[in-house]
Amino acid sequence: MFKVLDRARELEKHGAYVYHLELGNPRQRPLAAVIKTAIAELRAQNVGYTSSAGLPTLRTAICKRFNGLGASWVRDANVVVSPANLIISQFLDLVCDPDDRVVLFTPAFPTYWAATAHIGLDVAAVPLVAENGHLLREEDVETALSARPRAIIVNSANNPTGAVYSEAALRHLATRCQEEGVWLLSDETYADLCYDTDFFSLVHVNLPNVVVMSSFSKVLSIPGYRTGYAIGDEDVIERLALSNSTLISCLPIFTQAGCAAGLFELDSYTLQLRQRFGSVCRKIASRINESGILKCVVSGAGYYLFIDISKTGMDDMTFCNRLLEDYHTAVTPGRSFGPAYTNYIRIAFCGEIDDVKEGVERIINMAKGEVMRVNCWPAFGTV
Amino acid sequence: MFKVLDRARELEKHGAYVYHLELGNPRQRPLAAVIKTAIAELRAQNVGYTSSAGLPTLRTAICKRFNGLGASWVRDANVVVSPANLIISQFLDLVCDPDDRVVLFTPAFPTYWAATAHIGLDVAAVPLVAENGHLLREEDVETALSARPRAIIVNSANNPTGAVYSEAALRHLATRCQEEGVWLLSDETYADLCYDTDFFSLVHVNLPNVVVMSSFSKVLSIPGYRTGYAIGDEDVIERLALSNSTLISCLPIFTQAGCAAGLFELDSYTLQLRQRFGSVCRKIASRINESGILKCVVSGAGYYLFIDISKTGMDDMTFCNRLLEDYHTAVTPGRSFGPAYTNYIRIAFCGEIDDVKEGVERIINMAKGEVMRVNCWPAFGTV
Repeated sequence: MFKVLDRARELEKHGAYVYHLELGNPRQRPLAAVIKTAIAELRAQNVGYTSSAGLPTLRTAICKRFNGLGASWVRDANVVVSPANLIISQFLDLVCDPDDRVVLFTPAFPTYWAATAHIGLDVAAVPLVAENGHLLREEDVETALSARPRAIIVNSANNPTGAVYSEAALRHLATRCQEEGVWLLSDETYADLCYDTDFFSLVHVNLPNVVVMSSFSKVLSIPGYRTGYAIGDEDVIERLALSNSTLISCLPIFTQAGCAAGLFELDSYTLQLRQRFGSVCRKIASRINESGILKCVVSGAGYYLFIDISKTGMDDMTFCNRLLEDYHTAVTPGRSFGPAYTNYIRIAFCGEIDDVKEGVERIINMAKGEVMRVNCWPAFGTV
Repeated sequence: MFKVLDRARELEKHGAYVYHLELGNPRQRPLAAVIKTAIAELRAQNVGYTSSAGLPTLRTAICKRFNGLGASWVRDANVVVSPANLIISQFLDLVCDPDDRVVLFTPAFPTYWAATAHIGLDVAAVPLVAENGHLLREEDVETALSARPRAIIVNSANNPTGAVYSEAALRHLATRCQEEGVWLLSDETYADLCYDTDFFSLVHVNLPNVVVMSSFSKVLSIPGYRTGYAIGDEDVIERLALSNSTLISCLPIFTQAGCAAGLFELDSYTLQLRQRFGSVCRKIASRINESGILKCVVSGAGYYLFIDISKTGMDDMTFCNRLLEDYHTAVTPGRSFGPAYTNYIRIAFCGEIDDVKEGVERIINMAKGEVMRVNCWPAFGTV
């Protein structure tokens, strides 16, 4: 994904205007408190080290939030702050030995693939198919466990499909993992961006084999703060903090203080995001599914659509490269989410809305083999 | 080290005033441009992702700096931006397989030990002894190579000893590593903090087996920005950038922009630091060596002293724990720098000067088994 971004930047350097639909790089204005607090800490010269486990006030704020959501078992010692991407590698490194098997429900976030490959783990992919809305079912859990993995990563609300798994399916997964002695990492980065449904967090099951992780990047529109967290058993959390100490010492005070300030206004902020993204999603998905050549499942959360391009006769790399070079539109090839997805692309619709609309139009034009058209959204209206 | 910090924070929570000499957490005011630029970027809502290899303007600024220092071979593609601590793990992970051997010249920075242990590497320690001023000599290079390592880490100017190795010794090390097909990581974090001597950077040898790394934490007094960089062969640098993409995606734009702004004023800023730290170092080292019970080699760079506590009859953990609990002074036990150094402690003198003076006094009191005395620096004067 970052290679696509680099190539797009190159085109831009040569004067091209590129439509960015490749990264989940939200352009929504962050909460004023998140920016102001970081600035105030910088002004106060708070540019030193802090605890490897995270800024104490942020750990406490996360703890209180989950207590408020009903997970009363969560204490500060159950929370570690770390870049969310890094937590994936840290978790796998902690619970797995090289050549151990990890199950990914696919399509799956690229970092899961990169992190497992990096550590030398064997990946068993359990596909969650479009015909079932990319949802997790009890039979998928049994398929996953039959691969005899050391760990499973589950990601609801999902990137790239936007699928939100049911409480029953998630509880079943966690309980069965516990029974079979399998570690479970629940990546809940998009949990607070469910459009209509309430999200069920695996924090509520409180099992020692379950680590829940999330990020402030998406729910506060601040990927550049590079801050996330994990919640779990005290022992696992302490080992993750030790890993922080080895790898990165700690995170900046000012970004963490900004996230703590944002947490207190998170629900009102994400309510706006959910309404906005839900509306955009439905409109774009309709446009794509009405194209006659592309199709997608309508997301239930987040700001991605995973689009089936089979009917174009092109594979994902051909499609993405031509789209970027000829239509100046950047999207992510399906294979980033698993080797089986060469007939898919992912688009992110969290950018400037006019760019997103134009980008989607170009994708459809390209799929149909049509020349570029501009301003062709008369029926689209304001989203 | 971070455990000492956590315990110190606990004491502080209970009302104690703790003298912090444990971490290289500089309290000098950073350059205005470094803070202002970060704030301006935050105000401009530049809170998105950037390139995994680093913010382009920062890579270019680093490149230009080294070009200006005479290393004309350095191009943007030879520079990757990453947290300096993480670069150590990334480098070792890249060039070594588990069970490979790595040579550390000891005493050695704790992250080298933690990172090698984390990856499962075998460490061969080559001690650089106090009798030789903790300096690297040609015979130490041969001892290192005779261990048949995959990689060697060299750290001049050194943490914890403050030793600055000669150009001849460093050139010899790099050349011999090249001849023997051994990777060399040159950690030059304190290079710009040499008090009197000019520093020789291994960037100047331009060998494909040599990776030079540094950090902005110490030379710009901004450890909380968590930003460093590596310079090397294009291929290695590209692989380090890919590792960034897997582990942390990228670093914040605003911290990187702040570092770029700082680079342009680095020399005038570090001139002040060098004068200040050189003066403090000489005075503290005299006080310690005149104590009759503690001794140290006078540092040539940075803000650490590695102190021999043998004569106290206490090992480092006993000394450090009692010093923290009874004298409310935090220092780092010698074993953090290698298992052989249980008769050493390290102090950092980059904190508030009054705290440093009082902390050193308490260390001497504790070593002598004396009760606490306060304001006992009549001969010390203003530093």
